[in-house]
Formats: sequence, structure tokens, C-alpha cells
Amino acid sequence: MDFSKGAAWIKGQIMPIDQATIGVTDWAVTHSDVTYDVVPVWDGAFFRLDDYLDRFETSMTALRMETGMDRAARTRALHAMVARSGLLNAYVAMVAARGVPLIPGSRDPRDCANHFYAWCVPYVHVVKPEIADQGIALWLSETTRRIPPDSVNPRAKNYHWGDFTAGLFEAKDRGFETVVLPDHAGNVTEGPGFNIFALKGGRVVTPDQGVLHGITRRTAIELCTSEGLQVDQRALPVTELMQADEVFLSSSGGGIIPVARIGERTFSNGAAGPIASHLRQRYFALLKDPAFRTEIPY
Amino acid sequence: MDFSKGAAWIKGQIMPIDQATIGVTDWAVTHSDVTYDVVPVWDGAFFRLDDYLDRFETSMTALRMETGMDRAARTRALHAMVARSGLLNAYVAMVAARGVPLIPGSRDPRDCANHFYAWCVPYVHVVKPEIADQGIALWLSETTRRIPPDSVNPRAKNYHWGDFTAGLFEAKDRGFETVVLPDHAGNVTEGPGFNIFALKGGRVVTPDQGVLHGITRRTAIELCTSEGLQVDQRALPVTELMQADEVFLSSSGGGIIPVARIGERTFSNGAAGPIASHLRQRYFALLKDPAFRTEIPY
Repeated sequence: MDFSKGAAWIKGQIMPIDQATIGVTDWAVTHSDVTYDVVPVWDGAFFRLDDYLDRFETSMTALRMETGMDRAARTRALHAMVARSGLLNAYVAMVAARGVPLIPGSRDPRDCANHFYAWCVPYVHVVKPEIADQGIALWLSETTRRIPPDSVNPRAKNYHWGDFTAGLFEAKDRGFETVVLPDHAGNVTEGPGFNIFALKGGRVVTPDQGVLHGITRRTAIELCTSEGLQVDQRALPVTELMQADEVFLSSSGGGIIPVARIGERTFSNGAAGPIASHLRQRYFALLKDPAFRTEIPY
Repeated sequence: MDFSKGAAWIKGQIMPIDQATIGVTDWAVTHSDVTYDVVPVWDGAFFRLDDYLDRFETSMTALRMETGMDRAARTRALHAMVARSGLLNAYVAMVAARGVPLIPGSRDPRDCANHFYAWCVPYVHVVKPEIADQGIALWLSETTRRIPPDSVNPRAKNYHWGDFTAGLFEAKDRGFETVVLPDHAGNVTEGPGFNIFALKGGRVVTPDQGVLHGITRRTAIELCTSEGLQVDQRALPVTELMQADEVFLSSSGGGIIPVARIGERTFSNGAAGPIASHLRQRYFALLKDPAFRTEIPY
């Protein structure tokens, strides 16, 4: 079997990613009733696996999902799948899906048979690394606001990306790499697959409400703190973001990503800022730290 | 092949619904990047098929999807699928999915190969008809607000149901049939699969903004007008809803559904209201009107 494009684990079977499917009537599809998490694999080891598993369990609890597999079973499935794929650098998704009602015709989510599946593909960068090295051009959406947390809980990682997709079209049409969305109160939130940080005079601010609490966000906060930067987790008004010395993103798909420009506003003379670039290198070094690595038995 | 549970049309093939799947990495799943429509089949004919096809095309345009099939091809697919299924009363879904990027690793929605598929199952009622006849118990969510239209466009029918699902748990836990969500400004919006109407003193109000413009909503408006009721399409404050003489829902999955109770507030002495009940009967009669029927060549 060809696992070069990735692999999946579904109902105990490991298969090439091209064969991995889900039923079109599963509420994971028809109601986007699903939670997931994505853990990076780097040089043959999961990075911060326990932290990702913790968050996945928190998300499942928030959505009242019970897939009939415990943490040990999920961990075994992830290890077996990635080992079988042979991928040394991978983007590994674990998914809990609502399933379909055991009572035909029921519209009650409590009647559904939830299920777990997982898949992995070669490591995905949210922005190409050679572009990220130089600092990216980020678009702040003018038309689309992030789905508010009292509509869909962003801390239970979910596939409700309609706002991000609308924002991505807006960004790509204008030649920007990716998009960040404001909320309804004039604060900046997050983008498709990343959190955002604004640095000014030795202090760093990152939004706290209405965003996923990313594991790479946590890593970025830890790295900032170890560099002597004070980190405030609070609302970040768009006006304050635009006055930052440096801006950067955090993502499990690419680590720390410097921002050279938001719309017409340039930062660090239109290049990657020095502190963001330093944090980016420290993140990549951290991927090799045994303290955060769970080796995969290929 | 056993089509008793339904059928699907995928890439020109018709198959039993149990075999109908979509790839786990399709952006229809991972970004809920999909639009769809659902047309009812009643006694062997599509109801208002052209209206549903019109809206589906409007939704695809809004989401910038192009599946490489024209309206005639879609119509042929739907006819062939339902005919093959043998279902005389069915819930027929047509779906446009974003697909996966033709450029591996791309995060640009413009790079994706969009595709069409369809499926049908025996007719689905959003509320059991024998309960709907008596007037249902509706829950107004206390915790969850409808996703705002400047986050995700509700007129492009979509699978972003996280808010509805949270509301359904809240409703079902309290013994209510289904849920309706307020918006962030204190107006009522819609529920999972239905629009809502408030009737007071010969006037009917139904929300206009932040909701799907349902085809059954349109039918309900036409029926009200033909009964001499004036229909206002405008914001409907929750306080005004609660002062109505009668409340009813409209859905392609069940027609006109009288509401006997919202939370602790009863309407029509806790039964189906006389006007709503009359409209319900008129809707069922309309399903047999040749002017709205497209017969299926089984």
C-alpha cells in the first residue's frame, strides 16, 4: 500500500489516506458536528502529545461526545498509524464525530453513535516556510467577523471555517498570504489555523477570548516569557495591533510566523522582526527537545 | 441493491446510502466548506424543484463554487437517483463541496476541485408529525446565539450547525422538541431546519435578517397572504414573539408546524393554534398541486 500521501485509522483499520472516508449523512458532515485536534510529528516524534490529547479530551467533553475509546487506545491508534505511514514529519489529525442517530429519523444529538478516527499527511505549513522566514503579508478582513464564542465555542477545536474561508478569499484575491478576523467589538481574534501576537516595547499581547487556546500559542507564550518578555492574555483592539513593533502568528502548522505587513501597514520595515525571527528559531529548536518529544516506533 | 434506507449519486454512480462517503480530508469536512439544499419528494414528485435549484445556484455563487455540472445535469442526477431508490416520499439533498486543493499543501480555496453529490432518504420530519399536529414545545436558547450573518452567511444554506446543536442539547435536556436561537440584538432568528412566524391580530411577522430564506418560509408567506393575513418580513424581537397569539414554524421537513409552548409561555391554551393548524392543512394540500410538482419517472 502507498502511504506516501498519508494514512488513516478508521474503526481499527489503517489505510492509505486516499481510501479514508466518512458517510455523507454523518452529522460530522451534515451538522459539522465534530471536534478534532492536530498534533505535529517532527523528525519521528510527536511534539507535546499529552497537551494535544488533553485539549482533545476537553473539546469532546464540551461537545458531549463519547467515542468508546480511552486515551490509551487513542494513543495506540495514533502511534500505529504514523508508524505504518512511515512519515517522519507529519500533520496528525484526531477526530471525534457525532455519527448518525441509532434511532432512525431522530434529530436528537444524544441519540447518535459518536466515533473516533484519525489521519495523517506530510507536514502542512499554513504558510510556506521560505515565505514565513521573510515575514508574511497578512490581511485583516474588512467584511467578515469571527464567529462569536456564544454562537460556537472556539476552544472546542472545530471545523466551522465559513468565516475563515470567506476571509481567505478576500486575502488571496488581494495577494495576501492569509487572513486574520476581527470580532464584533473591534478586537482582533485569530486566523485559519493560527493565533496572533503583538509585541511593543518588551510586552506581548495575545487575544484571550473568542479564540482557540492553541498549543503553539502556549509554546509561544512560554518562549516569550523565557526571553524576559511580559505576556498579557487579553482583548487586543485592532488599533493596538496596528501600533505594534512586531506581529507574529503561532500555529502547529509552521510554529512562530513573523508578520511583515497587515494590509498597507508594514512592520519592521516590511521584513520579519528580529524578536519574532528569534522566537521562530527557538521554536524549531524546541521541536528537538526530548522533554516535549514522544518517539514513534516506526 | 437495497435502497430502502436511501440512495446517493456520487460521480455519476448511484449507490445505496450506506455506501455513500466523502474523503476525510475534503474541505467539505475539514472546513465545513459546503453548501447544500434539500428538496422534498411527496407522493412521487419533487415539490417546488425549480425554487430549490434556484436557491442552490445562488448559494454556490455566494461561496464561489463551480462543480462542472449545469442545472440540467444536476436535475437529471436527482431524477435518476430518486427513481432508482423507489422512494415516493423522500428528503433529497444536493450538495456542492469545496473538495481538496489540486496543488498539494495549498491553503487557497481557489485551488480546490469543487464537486457535486446528492443523496436521498425516506422523508425526514424535523418534528414527528403526530406531535406537530398537537403543537410543539419549543425552547428559546438561553445560552447560545445564532451565528451572525457577517460571520457566516445564513442565506447560503450551510452545515455550520454548532450553535443549533448546542441549542438542541439545551432543549432536549429540558424535554422540548426543538430550539430556536436569538441573535445578539435580542431578536429571534431561526432553528435547526426551520423558520419561525409570529401571528397577532391578523398580522404575521417572520424574521428577515440573519436567517435562511426557506422555500417553505416562502410557501408559508404565500399561504398567509392568500388567507388575507398581512405578512411583515422584519426583525422580530423576542419580547414581541412572546406576545403573539399564535406561533408556527416552516420547514421542508414537515411543512407548517404549530407551536403550543415556548419555554413556560403557552400559546392557544397550550395547543396548536387554529390559524396555524389551518395553514398546516393547506400546506399538505399544496404538496398535491400539479403547479408545484415535478413528477419522477420511477
